[in-house]
Formats: sequence, C-alpha cells, structure tokens
Amino acid sequence: MLGGVCGTDLQLIQGYAGFEGFLGHEFVARVTQCQDPPWLGKLVVGEINVGCGHCPECAQGDARLCPRRTVLGIRGLDGAFAESFQLPLANLHPVDDLDPTLSVWCEPLAAALEVRQHLPASCKVLILGDGRLGSLIALGLQADHEVTVLGRHPGKLDRLRRLGLHAVSEVSGSWPAVVEATGSAQGLSQALQMARAHGTVVLKSTVARPEAVDMTPLVVNALTLVGSRCGRFEPALQALRSGLVDPRPLVDQVLDLSEFPGAIGRRDWVKVLLRG
Amino acid sequence: MLGGVCGTDLQLIQGYAGFEGFLGHEFVARVTQCQDPPWLGKLVVGEINVGCGHCPECAQGDARLCPRRTVLGIRGLDGAFAESFQLPLANLHPVDDLDPTLSVWCEPLAAALEVRQHLPASCKVLILGDGRLGSLIALGLQADHEVTVLGRHPGKLDRLRRLGLHAVSEVSGSWPAVVEATGSAQGLSQALQMARAHGTVVLKSTVARPEAVDMTPLVVNALTLVGSRCGRFEPALQALRSGLVDPRPLVDQVLDLSEFPGAIGRRDWVKVLLRG
Repeated sequence: MLGGVCGTDLQLIQGYAGFEGFLGHEFVARVTQCQDPPWLGKLVVGEINVGCGHCPECAQGDARLCPRRTVLGIRGLDGAFAESFQLPLANLHPVDDLDPTLSVWCEPLAAALEVRQHLPASCKVLILGDGRLGSLIALGLQADHEVTVLGRHPGKLDRLRRLGLHAVSEVSGSWPAVVEATGSAQGLSQALQMARAHGTVVLKSTVARPEAVDMTPLVVNALTLVGSRCGRFEPALQALRSGLVDPRPLVDQVLDLSEFPGAIGRRDWVKVLLRG
Repeated sequence: MLGGVCGTDLQLIQGYAGFEGFLGHEFVARVTQCQDPPWLGKLVVGEINVGCGHCPECAQGDARLCPRRTVLGIRGLDGAFAESFQLPLANLHPVDDLDPTLSVWCEPLAAALEVRQHLPASCKVLILGDGRLGSLIALGLQADHEVTVLGRHPGKLDRLRRLGLHAVSEVSGSWPAVVEATGSAQGLSQALQMARAHGTVVLKSTVARPEAVDMTPLVVNALTLVGSRCGRFEPALQALRSGLVDPRPLVDQVLDLSEFPGAIGRRDWVKVLLRG
C-alpha cells in the first residue's frame, strides 16, 4: 500500500468533522479479500464516497453528495492507513499498468481537476496557496489555463517554477478566477478581494474552525463563489496515464505507515507519502 | 420627492463603506435643472451607479461594476435625501405615468428581481428574512417560483401571508435555492446549512462588520454562492406598470424628509418612505 497525506487528514486530527476512525483516503493498494475472485491481487485505487444506493444522488450514479454517505477515512468508514480497509467494488479502478507513485495521486488529482468544472475556458486563474492542494491544482490547470500561483514559501515557489508554473510571492490586479487553496479563512477573504467584478472564486479548502470573512466584495462585485470537493477518478487517471500531469516532483518524504502521524508536522513539506 | 429608506442606508449610518455624504438612493423626483429642456419638470427615477464611461464594464453599458463608479447616496455622490442632487440623463427613466408610491420602489425592486438571474427556473426558493429586502424579493419571485419566507416577526409574516406568500417562522429540509436577506452573517451561515447538495445560495445583504461564517457546507455540499447587488430598472418598471408586483402594502410609515434619520430605528418597520 502507498498512501498520501492530505490537508484534510491534518484537519481531521485537529477535530474537523469529529471523525475518530483510521485516516487515509489517498491510496493505491492490492485487493486481498473479495467475493469476485478476478479482483484478488489487483492493484487498485478507489473512489472514497460510499452512497446509500437509494437517494436521488446515488440513483444518478454520484455518491459524492449522498446525504447518508460514508467517506473513506473521513466519515464513518475506516481509511487506508488501517492494516486493511474495505470499499465496494463499484468504487475501485484497476491500476496495474501505472507506477504506484503516480496512481497514489489519483484521488487528490481528481479533486484538483474538479476545479476546471467551475472556470471559464482558458481564462487567467490565480491560485492562492503553494502547498499540496494549490500545487496540484496548478499542475492540473496548467494545460488549459493561464495559471499564477501566489504563495509564501520560497522553496515551494521555486519548485513550482521548475515545473513550468508562474509562481509569485506578490501579485496585484483583479482576476477573472481565483482558487482558494491555502486552507485558511484569511485565504477566502483575500480571494474575494482579488477577484474582478463578475469573477469566480473556487473554494477548495475546508477549515476546522469558522473564521471572520468579509463577504462585502461578493455582493458588491457580484462574484460567484463555488465550493468544490471530490472529483471523478476517470479524468485523473487519464491525466496520469497520458503524462499530462506528473505530480511526483511534489513529494518530499516517503515514510513508513507506522511513522504517521508522529513524523508529520513540518510546515515546509508539500507532500508526504506513506508506505504500508 | 418621495424616497425610500433601505437597509443599506442604516448600514451606512453605522459606518459601512465610509460614506459621509447625503444618503438616499431610492427615489422618485422631479427634474429641476437640466441642459436638455424637455426633461425639465418630468417625474423620474434613476439608476444609481455612475460609471467612468471608459472601462470595459462601462463600454458594455453596465456602470454597476465600473471600478471607478460613484453611487448615488452610497459612494462619492450625494444622494436623494439632499435638497437637490444630480444624476446623468442616461441614468433617468421618466415615470409620469406611474403613481409615485409605486415608482419609488423601482430601485429596490430592480435589485430584488436581479435575484432571478441566479435561480433555476420555477424552483423552490427559501428566502431568509421577513424584512424590507426579503419581503420585496418574495413579491418579485412569487410569480415564477415556489417561494417560502422564513422570518422571526409575527406581524411581518402575517402581512406576507395576506399578500399570498408562504411565510413561516420555522422550516426544515434541504432547499435547491436559498436567498439570504436577513442582513446578518448568521443568516449566511444558516443559508449555507439549509441548501441542498449542488444548491444555490444568493447573498443579497451587505453587513458593516465581517463575522464568523462556517463555509464547510459550501465545500462539502458543492454549493454555489452568488453575490447580487443592483438590478436593471427596465424589468422593475415593467413589473410595477403591469401590476405584477405591488409593494405598497409593505409601507409602514411615510415621514417628512426632515425626520430622517431621527425617527428611524423601530425594528418592526418593514419600509419607511420619506416625503421631501
């Protein structure tokens, strides 16, 4: 098993959403138990939302917004950092053809690519945050949009520049689209201030505690603020298989699963993978 | 001159936007000075945004989002509660054919009708707030949407019921569309909680001070939050002329202009008009 540590994991440790099970929702793993024998031994990634199967959302084939869903490692379902974990077959995608250091990125890349649904075609996009989420969104949007990443960490910004991205520590102007990926409520306030009239702001981060946000620009400048969470796996797998997106340079550390969460906490890491 | 007192006026008195001129942006008044003689003596209403005339927004004929705009009684331009005030001819609409107690509603009704731009056709809409803004939005949406108003004031809710609206003090469920018109940041938190997955929340109120808002539902339920401010006058005038919307029953008091703002402050008033 190879797993990825995500900002949501760190929020969950701080008490977000009151989840008390095993964490872990970014993984590539081998099937060890299954009623359908051909799956045994396959290397798989898995969509993390498990729906009730009966509500309108599930009937449309989208468990992501089922009101009674469980979510791997996040809500009511032990995650991939346990010794073993379970998902329905319908959630799995075989990835024996992919390097696990690539396929482990499927879940967060799917979420990053979901941002595209909310952006005008080919527009200029400002991404707030040079961390794991902002960096991945930048890589995902790079092909079709004119991307600028605003960040605070010289090392992370340098890495993004080496990946061909426009990454800066200061920027001005009014942007047609801004993506909030800092994980802080100040980030949302800033995003609303940086968007131009009629612009779009995409909020990707969840934060454990509500903070004061000045919503005035939203009303005065007639902005649209869109929340975005999980994405579909197919476009992410396609981007990884075709080489359109290669997030491997974002990895700082590969730790043993037993070192989690103790060894996490250094602020200058973009991405930690866990080997189990 | 007949003017209307709006929630924004009360916010401006509390310091919102740092405006120090004469207030007043809802009015019907007679033209007393004009370089184009046929306008003299006409009864007019006026769009309140005055653009620079050169930016892309102004070039598209929409001064509402011009970055250098002034706004009557709100930003850089003395308003209608002054002894006399000025607007460009392009902002004016003659309304000699309309009862002034109807035409004075043109500006707020235009803003209320603007909400329609953001809602799916014929959907169920929950409006938070039984005050002047929520009531007017409810009247404006009544013809084409299934409207429920959630409020706290028995008298105001009764009045809305007498106008044929579904007005309640408690409601549950998950709504495809929620309009925040309470003027409080708690209203926004509540609106986000009341919207169903993939739902739309329209934020109409501006508040003087930022408050803590839990944005988690926006991300987790993939909501769209849209800010909405001024509307176009044409649809509002059409709705008033045709009788589609008659907001006159919302008026509680008609005061003399000299009584403003001293006589304002009673919380159970929906709408005050000023006679000048």
